[in-house]
Formats: sequence, structure tokens, C-alpha cells
Amino acid sequence: MVEDLSPRLKLWVEAGGRLVMSDYRVRLLELVGESGSLAQAAEQMGLSYRRAWGKVKEIEANLGLALVQSEVGGAGGGHTVLSEEGRALVTGYRRFQERMGRELDAAYEAELKGLLSTSEVDGGTT
Amino acid sequence: MVEDLSPRLKLWVEAGGRLVMSDYRVRLLELVGESGSLAQAAEQMGLSYRRAWGKVKEIEANLGLALVQSEVGGAGGGHTVLSEEGRALVTGYRRFQERMGRELDAAYEAELKGLLSTSEVDGGTT
Repeated sequence: MVEDLSPRLKLWVEAGGRLVMSDYRVRLLELVGESGSLAQAAEQMGLSYRRAWGKVKEIEANLGLALVQSEVGGAGGGHTVLSEEGRALVTGYRRFQERMGRELDAAYEAELKGLLSTSEVDGGTT
Repeated sequence: MVEDLSPRLKLWVEAGGRLVMSDYRVRLLELVGESGSLAQAAEQMGLSYRRAWGKVKEIEANLGLALVQSEVGGAGGGHTVLSEEGRALVTGYRRFQERMGRELDAAYEAELKGLLSTSEVDGGTT
């Protein structure tokens, strides 16, 4: 009766009840890494430059890590790139997400799927 | 520098973009099962009776399952209990959550923990 059920998950990391890393935040960092520009990353996230900059600085402060490196000036304005720690964090978080995504499918299949779909196959045994 | 980081997750099940089961909803059903009373379950969730009843009926409609059974009347008013399918769903969802919780810890430990904690052990090798 019920079709296309699918399990979903949201992941994040807290420190003392405070959000310090999330799918959203890692996406911002990833876009900085891909574009080499905080302005472009901000635009793709629908954030003002100022807001995006504040987010990045907040992430760095919460984690005590320098995640981006900025270079000022030049013809097209400055550039912002990920530091080695920033790149490692984005890569590690993506692996964390992928692993959880695989387990989500497996756990749903094993523990819930059969209980939620009342699908008794009708005929079809030609 | 950053202490007590901990990974978190939220789980739910969708059908065609619509929420059909969640940690919150399964808690409501579980409380009905524990108390044998929708009124008590509603109170513990901070919901009005009417609201809680609507939620339960919505869950049943979305899943196409009869999850609760009501008995009207008697001295203390009616009772509401979980059906066999309702009990199976609560149990299955709890197993699903527990399995995901174990994987959360394991995946965090393996993929993220070392990148987030800049803990260089200072001395202490007495």
C-alpha cells in the first residue's frame, strides 16, 4: 500500500551541546575548497559573504583549527583555500557520511523495512 | 583544546518526501504501549489529547497499518493499547536506532575523531 518508503538521517557533531560540525557546514567548506573563493561558496549556499565568513570563523573557533587560508589582492580580488586540516576534515566528514549512509540502508533493510511495507505479493506467479 | 566532542544523528523515514516515522513518533507510540493510555502518552509528550490522537491516526494512515487499539468506557475512561503491528514497529524502530547509534560511534571514531581533536598529549608520563 505504501510505496517508496526511504530511511533518512541527519548527522552533526556537538561539543557541550553546541553544534560544531554538520552536513551544512562541511558543504560550505567543501565549496570553498572547490572554488578557491569564499564569495563563490557563499553565493552557492545562498549566504551573504559576511555571513559565510562568520560561519567559517565560527567553525574554526569551535574546533580550534585553522581550516581556511586567505590570500588578499590580485586582479580578481582575494582567494580563499582550504588548509591541509580543512581538506582532511572535509574528506573525513564525507567518509563518515558515506559509512553512515551505507549502514542506514542496511539497518533499515534488516530491522524496519518488512514491518513498514504491508506488501503481500498478489499473484504474479504465472 | 576542544573537549567532549560527540557525534549525533537524527533518523526518520519518508514516503514521497513526507515524514512517516521518526524518533518523536515512535516515542509517542512507545508511551501508549507503556501506559495503555493515549491521554497519559499525550501528557508525557506535552501534547493535547486531540493532537496526540491526530498524530497516531496520521501515522497509521501514512503507513497503512493499524497500530493502536482502543477500548472505550469503564471507570477510568477508555484504554488505548498497541496492536501487534504497533508493538513490532516500536521494537523494530528501537533496534534500527540502536544499530545506527553503534555505527555512529564506530564511524566517528574511525573517520573524524582524530581530525577534530587537536589533542597532543602534554607530558603526563610520570
